[in-house]
Amino acid sequence: MKKKLSELAEYVGGTLIGDGDAEISGVASIDDARPGEITFIANPKYLRKLGETSASAVIVSKEVTTADKFLIRAANPHLAFVKILTLFLVKPYQPKGIDPSAQISPTAQLGKDLTIYPYVYIGDRCRIEDRVALYPGVYVGGDSVIGEDSVLHPNVSVYSGSVIGKRVILHSGVVIGADGFGFVKEGKTNVKIPQVGRVIIEDDVEVGANSTIDRAALGQTIIRRGVKIDNLVQVAHNVEIGEDSIIVAQVGIAGSTKIGKNVILAGQVGVGGHIEIGDNVQVGGQSGVGQSLPSNQAYSGNPAMPHREWLRTVMTLPKLPGMRKILTDIETRLKKMEEAISLKEKEK
Amino acid sequence: MKKKLSELAEYVGGTLIGDGDAEISGVASIDDARPGEITFIANPKYLRKLGETSASAVIVSKEVTTADKFLIRAANPHLAFVKILTLFLVKPYQPKGIDPSAQISPTAQLGKDLTIYPYVYIGDRCRIEDRVALYPGVYVGGDSVIGEDSVLHPNVSVYSGSVIGKRVILHSGVVIGADGFGFVKEGKTNVKIPQVGRVIIEDDVEVGANSTIDRAALGQTIIRRGVKIDNLVQVAHNVEIGEDSIIVAQVGIAGSTKIGKNVILAGQVGVGGHIEIGDNVQVGGQSGVGQSLPSNQAYSGNPAMPHREWLRTVMTLPKLPGMRKILTDIETRLKKMEEAISLKEKEK
Amino acid sequence: MKKKLSELAEYVGGTLIGDGDAEISGVASIDDARPGEITFIANPKYLRKLGETSASAVIVSKEVTTADKFLIRAANPHLAFVKILTLFLVKPYQPKGIDPSAQISPTAQLGKDLTIYPYVYIGDRCRIEDRVALYPGVYVGGDSVIGEDSVLHPNVSVYSGSVIGKRVILHSGVVIGADGFGFVKEGKTNVKIPQVGRVIIEDDVEVGANSTIDRAALGQTIIRRGVKIDNLVQVAHNVEIGEDSIIVAQVGIAGSTKIGKNVILAGQVGVGGHIEIGDNVQVGGQSGVGQSLPSNQAYSGNPAMPHREWLRTVMTLPKLPGMRKILTDIETRLKKMEEAISLKEKEK
Repeated sequence: MKKKLSELAEYVGGTLIGDGDAEISGVASIDDARPGEITFIANPKYLRKLGETSASAVIVSKEVTTADKFLIRAANPHLAFVKILTLFLVKPYQPKGIDPSAQISPTAQLGKDLTIYPYVYIGDRCRIEDRVALYPGVYVGGDSVIGEDSVLHPNVSVYSGSVIGKRVILHSGVVIGADGFGFVKEGKTNVKIPQVGRVIIEDDVEVGANSTIDRAALGQTIIRRGVKIDNLVQVAHNVEIGEDSIIVAQVGIAGSTKIGKNVILAGQVGVGGHIEIGDNVQVGGQSGVGQSLPSNQAYSGNPAMPHREWLRTVMTLPKLPGMRKILTDIETRLKKMEEAISLKEKEK
Repeated sequence: MKKKLSELAEYVGGTLIGDGDAEISGVASIDDARPGEITFIANPKYLRKLGETSASAVIVSKEVTTADKFLIRAANPHLAFVKILTLFLVKPYQPKGIDPSAQISPTAQLGKDLTIYPYVYIGDRCRIEDRVALYPGVYVGGDSVIGEDSVLHPNVSVYSGSVIGKRVILHSGVVIGADGFGFVKEGKTNVKIPQVGRVIIEDDVEVGANSTIDRAALGQTIIRRGVKIDNLVQVAHNVEIGEDSIIVAQVGIAGSTKIGKNVILAGQVGVGGHIEIGDNVQVGGQSGVGQSLPSNQAYSGNPAMPHREWLRTVMTLPKLPGMRKILTDIETRLKKMEEAISLKEKEK
Repeated sequence: MKKKLSELAEYVGGTLIGDGDAEISGVASIDDARPGEITFIANPKYLRKLGETSASAVIVSKEVTTADKFLIRAANPHLAFVKILTLFLVKPYQPKGIDPSAQISPTAQLGKDLTIYPYVYIGDRCRIEDRVALYPGVYVGGDSVIGEDSVLHPNVSVYSGSVIGKRVILHSGVVIGADGFGFVKEGKTNVKIPQVGRVIIEDDVEVGANSTIDRAALGQTIIRRGVKIDNLVQVAHNVEIGEDSIIVAQVGIAGSTKIGKNVILAGQVGVGGHIEIGDNVQVGGQSGVGQSLPSNQAYSGNPAMPHREWLRTVMTLPKLPGMRKILTDIETRLKKMEEAISLKEKEK
């Protein structure tokens, strides 16, 4: 594929400096780019690389006005680059049809232009919408829906009654709708609480490899539109995650907790059950959240505290043994002085 | 399904207040219940909802003696509710037979009333007992046993030589019997220690989606009767988990460690290798346990300490930077006083 | 299998004390060994067991020179034992051929002496080298390479374009080459950054059950020769892990981070993105590494600090509430003294 630089500038809504007729044949990182390719600089501290790269054109921020290279100036250079990268490198969907060895219930309802690989199982009364791709080993339990243009990678398991929206991507090994973890004690025995709710995943959600989203006990577990979940994440029963939130790898969210919109939970965060995390909250890696967190703030630590407070605390932590020594020393000196003074009192 | 209220009261061993002939047609949470349905209140603080729910009947504790609703008074209202929920909503097992496309070794021994879906693989000399259900993509390696009434959800892998008890539930993606993680250094190279032991899972165990239980190096990894394991949990080689223990999501237990009976490990806890955790121990979320813990106590933190001590510690943590300031201030003042006194000494 | 003791001594390069013609028929741990079997003692504190074991022969360190048992004295007794264990208990590879139900692209290139089970899928233009074993449910996406003697256990997913070296072991549920987790904001929406790089796994790597190694955004994610990865580990896009490093269960490594050679990351460690961990570094369990770590040192804690410093810090932690009380007490006493002295000043 080749594109004129002027076309690319227009495609990303940027302004062009240089030869609009120059042909661009590929996209690469600033260090790897070769002549004929386009790259980008988002962080001003890498601007010195403008002179070093072999790329023919560079996408830069509006602040940059001149260089030896052709430039596309964009409000968000990274976003502009991603759009051009997608244009060059992401192949449009091509339906491959339905492999005859796939096991599809006669009561399942199938859309058009599907891609269904071997070893796929589709249960009774499912609805598989147009242009869905189901890779080998995918299991879709009965009464489930897979929305238009969704892709389920190899060995994904979707338990019965799940609802998956449009343009959803589930990576290999994802498990949707397994039983929530609920037991009640009868003496010492753990009696299983039936998990008879379901999972709803809205449009434009992506779930990383081997992540698990449990069905609700009653009602539903809901992943809202645009949420992005990384690998090996655990979402328990009856959780709700708000629109556009980002859940990084190995996060665990306990039952019935509600995560707001546009939240970021960094890697390995643990969130307790039955709490609420407000909109736009950011939680630092490995933090433990045991109580509800108000909106629009950053938190870290276990138990989670405001991020700045946590920073001050952990910077002081290594000084703790030293502080203890000083404290003992002060106590001794203070006692000595108290005795000295009391002695003088008596002397009088 | 419809049941008389008197039948339900008898079924859960509760006492009835109201019309025993009233017909109950369903079960729901207190907020969602409609007329004709039964619900429950376990926590006294929700008793005000007795007046608000549309449910026809409510299961309550023995303390409650009167209300506008029909009541079933039970010693453990939550347990009674779960039993009725199970009665109404959990369908009895219906064998679906053996799909002809499943690959079953001729030397495998098959019980009756099985459900074996397509794409199931059963190796040589396995024993699959009565009423077992194996979902699509399940792999059972040679010389394994799957006990009566057990359910292996889609894409579960059971390595050769594993023993799974009766009424065991393995959720999708569970891996039983993969090699333990053992290496010995030869120079810089990691030489693999053969993992030639096996995994034994006793009766009534449930294992959550994508959890992994490794085979022993020599001997066995044992999950005792009634243990419940959540999603994405790691159980290393030669671990033993005692009866009725509860292991919450993303916990990791290192090699050769022994967990007692009736233990609760909360989410994301890490337990080191070659230690013992006593019976009835509870460990708080994200704790790190590096040393053996005596029975009958609650622990938290990394390294784990008694839970109350941990609570006091973490409540003090955010005050640490302030304490440091005070300490510096005190040191200055003390020095000044010492100088003042020593000055006076000299003055004399 | 039976081996003469002299043969075994020679096989491991050890020196023999006792009857070289004695026949050894098996291998076991020191507590379980029976007559005719060989065992080992690596740790001097267990030497007392020399008198208690029923084993016919014991592998010991060079320091041990006499005992009632036959001895093989070896520089590294554990390593010698592992070699004999492997000799006795690990069966040599036997190719089982290609199951006719496996789905193999006609453009795939197949080596000899393969074992390909049912429900295996091999995509276009793959190269599967000699003596590879692919268990049921394995998916190998197009343009991938699986090197000689590698074993992919059941339900492993290898996305397209991945390169797997020789003698690699991937345990069940491993996912290689799923999309890295990369998004750029356009307003509130998360726009997917195409992940068009790949994964390279070099020779002699082992990856534990349900671990995930993401493909690079651009370029490659690389796992170097001899790396051993435990279960449920997350390796993000563009990460590189150096030779012979050991990554214990549930570790997470964020994008573009470079791990040195011979590193050990203990269980549940989290490593941030875009940093470097030097050669021979050891990081303690559950630590959080947010910044680059120089080589040849041990670290612990979150944020990670030198291990000894961390030990001192966490030993002081439980004393924190007590320290706070003392501090308050000292403040009061100091104030009293200051007032007393200032009083005296005035008295004068």
